[in-house]
Amino acid sequence: MDSESSNKDCLGWAARDPSGLLSPYNFTRRALGSDDVSLTITHCGICYADVIWTRNGHGDSKYPLVPGFCFTIPNNYPSASAAPLLCAGITVYSPMMRHKMNQPGKSLGVIGLGGLGHMAVKFGKAFGLNVTVISTSTSKKDEALNLLGADKFVLSSDPDQMKSLAKSLDFIVDSASGDHPFDPYMSLLKVAGVYVLVGFPSEVKFSPASLNIGAKTIAGSVAGGTKETQEMLDFCAANKIYPEIEIVPIQYANEALERLIKRDVKYRFVIDIENSLK
Amino acid sequence: MDSESSNKDCLGWAARDPSGLLSPYNFTRRALGSDDVSLTITHCGICYADVIWTRNGHGDSKYPLVPGFCFTIPNNYPSASAAPLLCAGITVYSPMMRHKMNQPGKSLGVIGLGGLGHMAVKFGKAFGLNVTVISTSTSKKDEALNLLGADKFVLSSDPDQMKSLAKSLDFIVDSASGDHPFDPYMSLLKVAGVYVLVGFPSEVKFSPASLNIGAKTIAGSVAGGTKETQEMLDFCAANKIYPEIEIVPIQYANEALERLIKRDVKYRFVIDIENSLK
Repeated sequence: MDSESSNKDCLGWAARDPSGLLSPYNFTRRALGSDDVSLTITHCGICYADVIWTRNGHGDSKYPLVPGFCFTIPNNYPSASAAPLLCAGITVYSPMMRHKMNQPGKSLGVIGLGGLGHMAVKFGKAFGLNVTVISTSTSKKDEALNLLGADKFVLSSDPDQMKSLAKSLDFIVDSASGDHPFDPYMSLLKVAGVYVLVGFPSEVKFSPASLNIGAKTIAGSVAGGTKETQEMLDFCAANKIYPEIEIVPIQYANEALERLIKRDVKYRFVIDIENSLK
Repeated sequence: MDSESSNKDCLGWAARDPSGLLSPYNFTRRALGSDDVSLTITHCGICYADVIWTRNGHGDSKYPLVPGFCFTIPNNYPSASAAPLLCAGITVYSPMMRHKMNQPGKSLGVIGLGGLGHMAVKFGKAFGLNVTVISTSTSKKDEALNLLGADKFVLSSDPDQMKSLAKSLDFIVDSASGDHPFDPYMSLLKVAGVYVLVGFPSEVKFSPASLNIGAKTIAGSVAGGTKETQEMLDFCAANKIYPEIEIVPIQYANEALERLIKRDVKYRFVIDIENSLK
């Protein structure tokens, strides 16, 4: 068989320059080798990394650039729901497991209620934790408590509410990507409390006393390994944990990215590749 | 028995004001009750906390102030050597144990070679670690390698030496109290590496990428509990681990504090209370 003739014709939506605007893009892949696997992509989540890559946020984007990444999905779990698990889901699941946050009865604070934060709440409840959502905006309160099942909601700008939470949390998952102080949140941890940072503010800055007094820990994480990802997918299937998603056609991708930048999404966009990429 | 007449007359050296100057000070304690324990103090370590307290560094010192703190000491261990263990020793031993740094064959970087840092090197070697001292000054090199037994010495101001250490360390104990950047040191950690901060710089500041990329952890600690302190003393006795000390009479206390401020001590002053406080 001629390898040239067996090259695959592919269709994606690509950014061509740092404007990040996506449009249909035809390209070819090399012929499938004996060690290669061919995957059919049915759904694809949209996350902030797609904004960064399409707009050359790190200065190393190469155009044309087709953003997104996919995994094999287990049975019994909707592909549309699985898509955000492979990014937002694993990014919080991995450090929560690594830092033993799956101990029923312990307390978890979740800072920031976006794609990552809402999964931290869902995992926290599935692990049997007492979950408090800490947010800068009361607009998140109703959904935090009633849709996501958090036990408590605290407005971070209210000193009395923050004070009532002092030294009360075993764990914190901080998914806020905007710049914010760290000391006030670290003061909510008990002795030996663990604070996991999964967001990317421009810097992390705090007083050493916030860490040293009370022997606290700050840990960071991005995504997770394949074994752990499979474990998470199985856990989600067994415990009926589904991300809150808004399914959109690929033709809506640019608008979805704009809405993501404005934080106008509850809580993850998923592109229906199967039915819209043609 | 009349409780008034059984009050104890005590002699200590006290600071009277924020100059921090120590001088002999007679005071009384209440009579020993049935639940009280009377201790005889034979030796007392000097650490930077004594500078802070005598000079009202935290704004909450109450004068007259007799600095220092002591524990009961086990048999088979010189009291003079035990004194610094109860402060410098436990401050590094506790987080090293909590973060499982006692795994032979793993690698440890020690930043700062003062009272705390030199104990981190000694514990690290006793735990079977490969220990690298990272210092701003080559003046520490000879003692780090030949007196304390470190395996390697790296000058932090030399980019090539630092580069050779990139992503090579399982653990770091940072005992530097002066202000310093964190990102260059965090880049020395392997994936899932643990960085323990025991010093008190004016702030901790780093890029979230230094923490998140490679799933690293920063943890803080001060001193330790009584159970762990006993365990450390037993470990030091069993493994013949002794702090490097300079024994001084109490009359030398003010000069010792001045030298401590100038970092002119290898590596801990210990006051011979028994033979000099009269």
